[in-house]
Amino acid sequence: MLTYHFKEESGFPLYIQLYRFIKQDIEDGTLKGDERLPSKRAFAKNLGVSTITVENAYDKLASEGYIYSKPKSGFFVESLKLRRTDLDGQGSAAANSGSKEIGNTGTKGDNSEYPDEDYEAAYETVKYDFTSNRNHEKLFPFSNWAKVMRKVLSEKSEEILIPSPAQGTKSLRTAIAKHLQEFRGMKVDPEMIIIGAGTEYLYSLLIQLFGRDKIYALEEPGYVKISKIYRANQVKVRYIPLDENGVDAKVFSGSDADILHISPSHHFPTGVSMPAGRRYEILRLAEEKESRFIIEDDYDSELRSDGLPMPTLFEMDTSGKVIYMNTFTKTLTSTIRISYMILPEKLMKRFKDELGFYSCTVSNFQQYTLAEFILNGYFESHINRLRRYYNKERELILGELKNYEGKLISGIRDEGAGLHFLIELRTELSDDELKKRALGKGIRISTLSDYYMQEKKNTGTLVMNYSSIGIDNNHDAVKELMGLLSED
Amino acid sequence: MLTYHFKEESGFPLYIQLYRFIKQDIEDGTLKGDERLPSKRAFAKNLGVSTITVENAYDKLASEGYIYSKPKSGFFVESLKLRRTDLDGQGSAAANSGSKEIGNTGTKGDNSEYPDEDYEAAYETVKYDFTSNRNHEKLFPFSNWAKVMRKVLSEKSEEILIPSPAQGTKSLRTAIAKHLQEFRGMKVDPEMIIIGAGTEYLYSLLIQLFGRDKIYALEEPGYVKISKIYRANQVKVRYIPLDENGVDAKVFSGSDADILHISPSHHFPTGVSMPAGRRYEILRLAEEKESRFIIEDDYDSELRSDGLPMPTLFEMDTSGKVIYMNTFTKTLTSTIRISYMILPEKLMKRFKDELGFYSCTVSNFQQYTLAEFILNGYFESHINRLRRYYNKERELILGELKNYEGKLISGIRDEGAGLHFLIELRTELSDDELKKRALGKGIRISTLSDYYMQEKKNTGTLVMNYSSIGIDNNHDAVKELMGLLSED
Repeated sequence: MLTYHFKEESGFPLYIQLYRFIKQDIEDGTLKGDERLPSKRAFAKNLGVSTITVENAYDKLASEGYIYSKPKSGFFVESLKLRRTDLDGQGSAAANSGSKEIGNTGTKGDNSEYPDEDYEAAYETVKYDFTSNRNHEKLFPFSNWAKVMRKVLSEKSEEILIPSPAQGTKSLRTAIAKHLQEFRGMKVDPEMIIIGAGTEYLYSLLIQLFGRDKIYALEEPGYVKISKIYRANQVKVRYIPLDENGVDAKVFSGSDADILHISPSHHFPTGVSMPAGRRYEILRLAEEKESRFIIEDDYDSELRSDGLPMPTLFEMDTSGKVIYMNTFTKTLTSTIRISYMILPEKLMKRFKDELGFYSCTVSNFQQYTLAEFILNGYFESHINRLRRYYNKERELILGELKNYEGKLISGIRDEGAGLHFLIELRTELSDDELKKRALGKGIRISTLSDYYMQEKKNTGTLVMNYSSIGIDNNHDAVKELMGLLSED
Repeated sequence: MLTYHFKEESGFPLYIQLYRFIKQDIEDGTLKGDERLPSKRAFAKNLGVSTITVENAYDKLASEGYIYSKPKSGFFVESLKLRRTDLDGQGSAAANSGSKEIGNTGTKGDNSEYPDEDYEAAYETVKYDFTSNRNHEKLFPFSNWAKVMRKVLSEKSEEILIPSPAQGTKSLRTAIAKHLQEFRGMKVDPEMIIIGAGTEYLYSLLIQLFGRDKIYALEEPGYVKISKIYRANQVKVRYIPLDENGVDAKVFSGSDADILHISPSHHFPTGVSMPAGRRYEILRLAEEKESRFIIEDDYDSELRSDGLPMPTLFEMDTSGKVIYMNTFTKTLTSTIRISYMILPEKLMKRFKDELGFYSCTVSNFQQYTLAEFILNGYFESHINRLRRYYNKERELILGELKNYEGKLISGIRDEGAGLHFLIELRTELSDDELKKRALGKGIRISTLSDYYMQEKKNTGTLVMNYSSIGIDNNHDAVKELMGLLSED
């Protein structure tokens, strides 16, 4: 069995020391991919420490993607290399059958701002698509998901026929609370959670909850779909510019907006993470007016890799002013349509009083399946795998891009996380010319200007959604992309 | 083994002859409830016919609800009486586990207008509930549904990960079109269908499509939840009274309303079916103004039993003024959350242009499962079975009520269909006193006044939602109900 020697004088807690020993062994190859780690109890006995120490170390390693757990079998070392055979088979078959049902804006990458005609015309010949930040279907944990589905079908046949409360089944809400506690360190009462068929649906519930006389403030630039949803619901919208610390607090303060809808942990698409100072400033502003609230969209927190992220606004809030929102469509598959939000107590009471007559929009079967999936540890191993996979992928594509830095690229804005980053180009071409030229070569790109809702000025900045390129294609894709700039 | 003698000269195919022989034996009691029929192969051999002949006869009998199949054990004679053992087991277990999650208006019968406190206080002691018109969970075709789910899981693993268009997967839309053609005689282009997570969600899409400056007209009395949804969306609402032919066309004509939301085939809760004359009148009124449209809510068409119902307004409409809407939550289970609407071409174009960015709110897995369920004929046999079951149940409870007609009951308004009917009482008690008295005895009732949105006047009329009473309890339930009237 593994044996390590702790140093009492190091000043670090035992579990941190243990975590570092194991991490070191994984990084230098002493512990190999898929190797089984000792059971917590046996390991603790062997090392002369408590099981809690081992548990904390394992948890930290797992949360950082170094190890993964299998229900009932323990912890294993994460394999650093991606198994290509898996990918090629599933991925490309899925992509082919996908083209059958395409031909409608609803099927596009969530953030795509291409007009339909261009998209459809170009679809057949697209070689590289840098516009989709969907998690690739090849990474969906199909066999575990199917296993849990079969289990729910045979063990929960009665429960799945009993109408769930408006806010969703207690079992899923409890599982989500457990996940948030373990993964994000958030303490959440399951009674404050509302489940819905996608964040898009939850936004519309919030508009009903706050009322359409309220004015909604969105980030500029930002996630265009959010703006579309507010506009489709015909409420008044204001756009608040960003600076390097996130949404501009002074502009918000001076505006007539009530509800501020932001993604402070990892802004899309700039990647900006709002520092603590700005967070407190925003919270204070919300407290100033009765009608002010903040919607905190934590859409990709599971995909971020930089250790334990900063506490959420929701946790920092002491005045019941923040609604936390997150989704499983980014981490699992956009085709399952399950998202959730957490309301402060007062708003939850209002929800029950005024909107409690609604039926929950997610089927019970899906709710029970996801609850089991989380409680059995499958969700955690899945997101660890995702993070490692995309970290590797990002590292490789950034390596390719480095060759062009200084010449065609003036800067890369990478926050070390998420499924995209920005590159600033040295080019005379307008954003539109660039996109047109790319499309001619079978490359779909999006520029930062696509994410501005008011004024579409030239940015010379590409939003690199790299998740659908594939590790083996990085070299050629980047070469062709850069080739666009040197052409005439 | 059963033996029948075929007549070649009869002119009828062998399978039809066999079907009639068996049907006759079931109807006159020669074959008893739950009796196992011979296996197809053995029976065919014994009768000297092909297995296809037996198969066709069995299929026809099953689709008409005379026999039913159990996976891997064959076909059995449908019992005309309800099997109490099944019910006590599944039904009450379900009710008990249900109570764990209750405590929220979302869990109540869809049409219930009880204040929460009364409901919770009374929950434990409710003996008879005449307020829920939900299809009972015991009637959900669980084994067939599970079979199809397993099939989809193993055969459609790629398709279910490919994002569906905003309006839903092509496979489900095609299956729905086929069902409407076969069951309702409607010719529908699958491209005009939009799938959504419940009609409640679809209403909110329609409000976005028409715009919130429009004025919406609802039936008075009517389905209270619809009114709640429009009010939660803060649009202007008008209430149009009913006469014996449905919604009053003159009042609608004189109002400032644009969108008329009605259930012309079977009004809830009065049961009124709108005759052709009134239908044409309504359609003409819609044509008069550009902004006018009709939402036709056909919520229980599958449960109506009186042969092929009248053509829908949607079919009679030649000017693109009618949106047809229906749901699977009434016929399957409210926990699956799948509904659909059919738009006229012009509105569908507007939907794609303005709202096509939305993701479909139903998961792909559920969409593929339901499509298979319909295409394999399971849905048709299920609704045939439901109809037979509820017809029997209604017949029995009406029989019990007949004993009180003239004395405590002045009239029964039964349209021979659906999951409810009305009884007009001879009583001095107000509707509220009646409900209070009933609750004291563990009986939940609703009166027609509960379905009025504006003025809650006394009606002395009970809305008898009989679906959750159970055949064996009819006698006692009716006796106790009538007992309320003679007490002091």
